[in-house]
Amino acid sequence: MATLAPDKAPPELVAFFEDVRRLVDGELTRRLAPPPEDPGRLIEAMHYAATGPGKRLRPAVLLAAAEACGGAHANALPAAAAIEMLHAYTLVHDDLPAMDDDDERRGRPTVHVAFGEGIAILAGDGLLTAAFGALAELGPYAGAAVAVLARRAGAFELLGGQAIDLTASPESLGSLASVERLHAAKTGALFAAAAELGGIAAGAPAATCASLGRYGLSIGIAFQHADDRDDQEFQELAEAAKERMRVLGEEARAIAQSFGGRGARLASIAAWFASQA
Amino acid sequence: MATLAPDKAPPELVAFFEDVRRLVDGELTRRLAPPPEDPGRLIEAMHYAATGPGKRLRPAVLLAAAEACGGAHANALPAAAAIEMLHAYTLVHDDLPAMDDDDERRGRPTVHVAFGEGIAILAGDGLLTAAFGALAELGPYAGAAVAVLARRAGAFELLGGQAIDLTASPESLGSLASVERLHAAKTGALFAAAAELGGIAAGAPAATCASLGRYGLSIGIAFQHADDRDDQEFQELAEAAKERMRVLGEEARAIAQSFGGRGARLASIAAWFASQA
Repeated sequence: MATLAPDKAPPELVAFFEDVRRLVDGELTRRLAPPPEDPGRLIEAMHYAATGPGKRLRPAVLLAAAEACGGAHANALPAAAAIEMLHAYTLVHDDLPAMDDDDERRGRPTVHVAFGEGIAILAGDGLLTAAFGALAELGPYAGAAVAVLARRAGAFELLGGQAIDLTASPESLGSLASVERLHAAKTGALFAAAAELGGIAAGAPAATCASLGRYGLSIGIAFQHADDRDDQEFQELAEAAKERMRVLGEEARAIAQSFGGRGARLASIAAWFASQA
Repeated sequence: MATLAPDKAPPELVAFFEDVRRLVDGELTRRLAPPPEDPGRLIEAMHYAATGPGKRLRPAVLLAAAEACGGAHANALPAAAAIEMLHAYTLVHDDLPAMDDDDERRGRPTVHVAFGEGIAILAGDGLLTAAFGALAELGPYAGAAVAVLARRAGAFELLGGQAIDLTASPESLGSLASVERLHAAKTGALFAAAAELGGIAAGAPAATCASLGRYGLSIGIAFQHADDRDDQEFQELAEAAKERMRVLGEEARAIAQSFGGRGARLASIAAWFASQA
């Protein structure tokens, strides 16, 4: 999947994405190092899922949002690990035979193929649990951070989107508005959480974090439009989707610019997402 | 399963268990009321799983621990709902075809039989997520509460126990000590979390909460010994297990008594668990 490959990003972002991967993968490996006794290779499976190929876009958005609020990367790192573990858990469970039934992801066997279906269920559960555990390390901001992630990743947003996916065909969604509601739940929710958590970890006021949430939602929907570009099912909506990507990118860029110079990275990310239109 | 049925509890506990069920089920129904649009009946499945028959033993322990620390039930109610949602999630995922493959639980179809396997996976995920969301409501205690639940329910305790269960037969465990390590992870961890969370929600100091954790671990292991009593696989260890139940009950009762009169309920619960020996 070549959509939004970090090594094809605008030059000012490439080095940032490399830094993010190094930082976040180091943090994930520290948290998920398999102990000498690892029954069923559960923790190895969690590490495999969280540190495989993949773009680390959500932690990048989170760290860029923390920057925009004047926060240091180090303070936001537990949250960056949390959002990547959360994302990894959704992929592990999505790939299960009872869900999308995928054998391969990013050129490697999926977790249930490599470790067995039971361990894959537990590994997803473990990553979800560890994500909240990491947010608990945010000191005075832990409560707000957990509340945001639980809402965004919960049954009324992310999981609700996955339930729609299980029960509806893309054609049955019909209009671009319905497709976008699904995009908002399935993909927008986690990008929104990423941006909000960056603000929270930097100690930003609630109104600022809410504004970052709108930024994340916009780029998340744009990302999903880009991801669906080559999908046969969405061809009829392709032109309308392109126009929406431009609009969503502009909305996100405006929010980024409200942070002045510190928001430059967020603005670059929004422009890059919109440029896929 | 007749083990430790709350309506067969000592008289001083029966009314308490009835109160707990009414309080906790009211709280769960408030949190998990299905909205008019509920794709795939996801939220209905979560409600079905969390409010079915069952003993509400973990929230009872949690509320009794809060009492022991001088805390009000109302302040501990989000944590009581959290521990029951956490317990419900483990049952939903445990019952899946790739795990224990059970069609019935407490006389009703399991969630994957009633709602489909994909929705059962998502419903478990949703309950786990909602459990952490509820703990985020504990104000200044949210961070400590989330840290405890993430550790106890994580890959190094609860989920590690389930991974052992997936990969080892009870006979292969051999000794009572090995069986008890599994009991500690699978069942002890959540009872320990329940008791600790009660202390945390009541604002008790860390050392008191740790002591409550040891109380919960002891009664949790005793509970699992009682639950395995009629299990053919454990017959060889039955006599040794009875003796351990008595010892564990005594250990838990001693901790309960360190709370003076306020710990009376915790002491009664420990005595009741031990009386199954």
